[in-house]
Amino acid sequence: MLRSCVSRLRMLAVLGGPPGVAPLPAKDPWSPRVNPGAGRRERAAKPGCVSGDPRSFSSEVIHMDLSLPNPSWSEDMRLLFDQFMKKSEDGSWKHLPSYKSKFTQRTEDIKIYFPDAKLMKEKLSQAQLFPRSFEEGLGFEYAMFHNCVEDRTVCIFQGGPYLQGVPGFLHGGAIATMIDATLGMCAIVAIGFAMTASLNISFKRPIPLGSVVVINSQVDKVEGRKLFLSCNIRSVDEKTVYSEATSLFVKLDPKTRLT
Amino acid sequence: MLRSCVSRLRMLAVLGGPPGVAPLPAKDPWSPRVNPGAGRRERAAKPGCVSGDPRSFSSEVIHMDLSLPNPSWSEDMRLLFDQFMKKSEDGSWKHLPSYKSKFTQRTEDIKIYFPDAKLMKEKLSQAQLFPRSFEEGLGFEYAMFHNCVEDRTVCIFQGGPYLQGVPGFLHGGAIATMIDATLGMCAIVAIGFAMTASLNISFKRPIPLGSVVVINSQVDKVEGRKLFLSCNIRSVDEKTVYSEATSLFVKLDPKTRLT
Repeated sequence: MLRSCVSRLRMLAVLGGPPGVAPLPAKDPWSPRVNPGAGRRERAAKPGCVSGDPRSFSSEVIHMDLSLPNPSWSEDMRLLFDQFMKKSEDGSWKHLPSYKSKFTQRTEDIKIYFPDAKLMKEKLSQAQLFPRSFEEGLGFEYAMFHNCVEDRTVCIFQGGPYLQGVPGFLHGGAIATMIDATLGMCAIVAIGFAMTASLNISFKRPIPLGSVVVINSQVDKVEGRKLFLSCNIRSVDEKTVYSEATSLFVKLDPKTRLT
Repeated sequence: MLRSCVSRLRMLAVLGGPPGVAPLPAKDPWSPRVNPGAGRRERAAKPGCVSGDPRSFSSEVIHMDLSLPNPSWSEDMRLLFDQFMKKSEDGSWKHLPSYKSKFTQRTEDIKIYFPDAKLMKEKLSQAQLFPRSFEEGLGFEYAMFHNCVEDRTVCIFQGGPYLQGVPGFLHGGAIATMIDATLGMCAIVAIGFAMTASLNISFKRPIPLGSVVVINSQVDKVEGRKLFLSCNIRSVDEKTVYSEATSLFVKLDPKTRLT
């Protein structure tokens, strides 16, 4: 199980990443270069990027892992990140990089899902991954870690001031976004390229702007192309449950067009 | 029913707006000045703004209605907007302005929910309404209209390139955000200041980036402080159903702290 999980994670890195997560460089994402665990964000070395590949859609692609600590992260966020990086040293957990970058999938890969690749190229010229489309510290600051043995993904998340709903608290849509992103990552590692089919969220307490929370997601059941998952959002000390959610993800069939 | 609905809408304008919707100028939101229905965004005249009020948190507040047409709106979006503005002429529908602005509620109003108003002031100095926190055309472009007789709110929505999930399509979290914002507005008009307690979304088809969709929401049932609502997202020609959702909103009790 662990071996097949790691294999899927490596495949994701080559194919360009899951829904909700921008494409990874076509290289082992666990290498110290991409995932240094240091207190700053780093650009992947050019030889590993898709940017120089004539088959990619954009030549401006910069692979900057945005799941690494930056000056906007609070003390709680940094401590949690360091704890999970420590847990990752023995291989039981894996840090999952993520990127804001423009669309970088190779044309032949994307043609599987979008036969009109030219049209897609035009549409995607400005596109950015939604949870990574804010400037540093203003929106979604987060990092994810996956445990292949337990089939679960943890997201540590700090919500910035541009995510406001009721004054002083996160918008329900911002909470739903991080839940969908975390469950999506958990699903994709389990079954490959998949999309959300249903999402059921119970908002138990409002989450204050700027606070750090932990999203724990897990695979509950697999039925063919269907994957049932659940998650909860807790405070750093685990005493407060902010939200709970269940979801159904469906593995995409390469023979089926999305439009 | 119609009369009480209009009364609630006017009250909202005075108190600062619902969750998910920034505060309105303390003036009739249906006046031609705030809601001109013209093809450009306008600033509300200063005399109607809270900015000159020493009791407000910020003196930099600009009340710019972001639910009016701008150059990023597609032809479909403009046509729909004009259709609903036309329907609003006889009073059966009402256009609901919305704002990005910094937190502007008066201290005495916000003390009802946040006893430590000083702390809230610090937290909220940078805060922006989540669905309005993107630059023009890049994120959520939308306008809402409410029908008091039928207790329903319609949102016309065009999703920009920064809302991407699966390449070429809206992120599930972006769809959830607009659903929550629309249902929230429908709830607040019905029962006053309320928050999402649960949200159940069925994603039936992916929504292409840049396309225009229509979110139809309605009140299904009221039980004391609980409000049950539902909505669907359809294409402009109404032939394609992209998503369906149900939700529970709970009216906030002014005697209860949120934290």
